Amino acid sequence: MHYQDYFKSRLDALRDDGNYRVFADLQRKRGAFPKARHMAKDGAGDVTIWCSNDYLGMGQHPDVLAAMHNAIDTVGAGAGGTRNISGTTHDHVLLEGELADLHGKEAALLFTSGYVSNWAALGTLASQIPGCIVFSDALNHASMIEGIRHSKAARVIWKHNDLADLEAKLAAADPDAPKLIAFESVYSMDGDIAPIKEICDLADKYNAMTYLDEVHAVGLYGPRGAGVAEREGLMDRLTVIEGTLGKAFGVMGGYIAASAELCDFVRSFASGFIFTTALPPAVAAGARASVQHLKRSNAERECQKERVAKVRAGLDKMGIPHIDNPSHIIPVMVGDPVKCKFISDTLMRDYGIYIQPINYPTVPKGTERLRITPSPVHSDADIAHLLGALEELWHQCEVARVPQAAQ
Amino acid sequence: MHYQDYFKSRLDALRDDGNYRVFADLQRKRGAFPKARHMAKDGAGDVTIWCSNDYLGMGQHPDVLAAMHNAIDTVGAGAGGTRNISGTTHDHVLLEGELADLHGKEAALLFTSGYVSNWAALGTLASQIPGCIVFSDALNHASMIEGIRHSKAARVIWKHNDLADLEAKLAAADPDAPKLIAFESVYSMDGDIAPIKEICDLADKYNAMTYLDEVHAVGLYGPRGAGVAEREGLMDRLTVIEGTLGKAFGVMGGYIAASAELCDFVRSFASGFIFTTALPPAVAAGARASVQHLKRSNAERECQKERVAKVRAGLDKMGIPHIDNPSHIIPVMVGDPVKCKFISDTLMRDYGIYIQPINYPTVPKGTERLRITPSPVHSDADIAHLLGALEELWHQCEVARVPQAAQ
Repeated sequence: MHYQDYFKSRLDALRDDGNYRVFADLQRKRGAFPKARHMAKDGAGDVTIWCSNDYLGMGQHPDVLAAMHNAIDTVGAGAGGTRNISGTTHDHVLLEGELADLHGKEAALLFTSGYVSNWAALGTLASQIPGCIVFSDALNHASMIEGIRHSKAARVIWKHNDLADLEAKLAAADPDAPKLIAFESVYSMDGDIAPIKEICDLADKYNAMTYLDEVHAVGLYGPRGAGVAEREGLMDRLTVIEGTLGKAFGVMGGYIAASAELCDFVRSFASGFIFTTALPPAVAAGARASVQHLKRSNAERECQKERVAKVRAGLDKMGIPHIDNPSHIIPVMVGDPVKCKFISDTLMRDYGIYIQPINYPTVPKGTERLRITPSPVHSDADIAHLLGALEELWHQCEVARVPQAAQ
Repeated sequence: MHYQDYFKSRLDALRDDGNYRVFADLQRKRGAFPKARHMAKDGAGDVTIWCSNDYLGMGQHPDVLAAMHNAIDTVGAGAGGTRNISGTTHDHVLLEGELADLHGKEAALLFTSGYVSNWAALGTLASQIPGCIVFSDALNHASMIEGIRHSKAARVIWKHNDLADLEAKLAAADPDAPKLIAFESVYSMDGDIAPIKEICDLADKYNAMTYLDEVHAVGLYGPRGAGVAEREGLMDRLTVIEGTLGKAFGVMGGYIAASAELCDFVRSFASGFIFTTALPPAVAAGARASVQHLKRSNAERECQKERVAKVRAGLDKMGIPHIDNPSHIIPVMVGDPVKCKFISDTLMRDYGIYIQPINYPTVPKGTERLRITPSPVHSDADIAHLLGALEELWHQCEVARVPQAAQ
C-alpha cells in the first residue's frame, strides 16, 4: 500500500461529500468575549462567536483568571506526573472536594477531559463488573459510546429518551445480571432533556446503576449550578454524575461524582485515569474558582435564560425554524449541507458572525443546522445583528420557514 | 448484585495484595521545585521530589509562566469548544507549527494529553486503514496498547527491542498487508532505548509505517530537544513521532508530528480528537514557550546529564543496584513490594524525600523499584541527602547490594 496516497484519497472523499472540516483560527479577547479576532489566511477580521460552549462566559471571569494566575505564581505550570507519581497537587484535591460537594456525593474524581471521564469511567465500570450489561441511550455522546465499546460488555441501545423501550429492554435482560443505564441530561445537538426521574425509577425497579452525563448542564441548571438533576431534586438517586470543567465552567477537564467506593474503584482500575499526566494545577484552581462562583451566583444563569428567550422570540417572529426544546441550545434548522456551510461562511465573511455549521455525521443527513448558544455576554446589539443577518440570508438562500410565527 | 459491596471487595483485594495506591498530596513551590509541601493528613512537611516527570524543571521556567500569564490576560481561561466548534485558538495553531518544526515534519496535531494522542492516533490509523497489521513492542505504554486494541486491527506483539523477533514477524505477515510498527524511544520504567535505525530499516524492507513514542525523550535528547530520533539523525525516517507537553516541557498535552496528509487524516477521523474540548490557550502558549526555549538552550540537558551521572556514581559506590541504561531514568531495584513501599514511606516520613514506589502491575513482580529522575534543579546537597538516606535504608532493610562498586 502507498500510505500517503491512501490518506489523500480518504481526505478527497471527505471534501467531495462536503464533510471536510476547516477549523476557524480564533484569537479570543479576554474581557470582550464573545468578540474575537478571526485569523483567516486571506486577512484577519473581528467576529462575534455564537457557537461557543463557554456558555456563561466564565472563561473570562475575573475570579477564574485570578485563581489561574495565582496557581501559576505559587506552584508553577504543569503537574509533573500522573496522579500516582508526583502529579497529585493540593489543587486537585481541593477541586475534587468542591465537585463532590456540588453534586452532594461522597467523592469526585478528576480526569483530563470530559471525553476521558466518560471513556474511562464507563469503560472501567462496564469491563470490571463481571457480566455487566450497559443500557445506552441511542443519542449518547461519542465518548460514552467509545467507553462502552472499549469495555467489551454487552450493550443494549434503547431509543432516545424512550422510557417504554428502556423498560422493555431492562425487563428482557437476565434479572441477576449487573446493569448500568447510561444517558445524558441535556443532549448537545437537539437540546432536549432526558426524563431523569423516570429513568431512575426504572433503575430502582430493575436494580440498575445510573450514569448521567451532565456536561451540557453543569453550571447552567439548578440553584447551585449542579445540573438538571439538581434542579429536579434527583442527585441522590443517580449512581454517577459526570460533568465537564470545559464548557459552562470555562476551563478544561472532566469528572465523575459518586460514592467514595465507586470513585476509588475507577481511580484504581481505569487505565485512562492512571497512566496520564494530571491536569495543570492552574487549570484545577481556575475550574474550582468557577464552580465556587456559580454555586453562589444565579445572575449568569438568569441572564442566559433571558438571552436565549430573546433569540428564540426573534427567530419565531421571522419564521426561522429552530428546535423547540427546554434548554439553552438553539438548533436553527437548515436541512441542507451545502446551504448550511454557505450560510455559515457568509455569516463569517459578510457579517462578522461565527456559527460553525453542523453537518453529517455529527447530525443525521437532512437535519443540517446552525447550533446557536446565546450567553450572558451577548448584548442586545449582538442579538439584533444576528437576527438581521439570518433574516437576510434566509431570504437570499431560500431556506424553508415555518408558516406561523410561533412553532 | 450489590454494587457497593462489589467495589469494596475489589478494593480490599488490592489492599491485601499491597497494590492499593495512595496519592501523595503535594503543594509544589514555584521557583523552589523540586521542593514541595507534602499535605499529609497527619501534618504537612517539606519534601524534595525525586520522581517527577517534569524532568528539566520547565514547569517553573520564567518564559513558560510568562507565556501562560500573558495568554490568560489576553484571551482568557478555556478554549470554549472542540477544535471544530469555536475551540481552535491562534495559540493552538502556533504550537502545532512549532512542533512540526521541532520534528522536521510537515505538520503536527495537538491532543489533550499524550495518552489521548497515542490512543486516538494509533486507534485511528490502525482502524481506518483496511487490513492494517500493527506490530507492537511488548513493553509499549498502556495508551498505545489501548489505542491498538481499540482499533480492532490485527496485532502482533514483538519481543521488547528484539530486532530478530520483529523481522521474523514482519516476514511471516502478508507482504501486501498495510503495516504499522509501534514502539517507544526511551522506555519509562527500565530507561532503555530502542534501536530506532534498525527498526526503520526493517520498516523500509517490509513497507511498514513507523510510529515512535518519544514522550520520555522530547525536550531531553537531540541538539534542539526533539528526542532520540533527532539525536541520531533519524527523524525523517519515521512516519509518526508522538510526544508530550506534560513531561520535560513541563505543561500538559500530547501531539503527533508527521506528513500533512497523515495529520489531516487523524484530525478528520479520530473520535478522541474531534469530540473533545481543546486545550486552554494558556496551556498551549506555555508549552510553546517551553519548546522554543529548549530548542535553543542545551544548558538544562547538559546539567541533567551531569546530575544523573552523579547519582549513578553514588549508587555504584554504595553497591545499590540500579538498571544500567543510557537514559536519564534511574530504576533503583528493591525486588520486593513490601520493602519497596516501606522504603518509600520511610524516605517521605523521616528524610523528606519523595519517591513513589513502583510495584506490580506497573512492573513485573520481583522487579519492584524506586524510579529516580534527577533533574537540573536537584542540588549537590539534595543528591548527598538522597544517597545518605538510601545507604541507611538499604542497611536497615537488608536489601540486596551488588558485589562490586560498578555494575
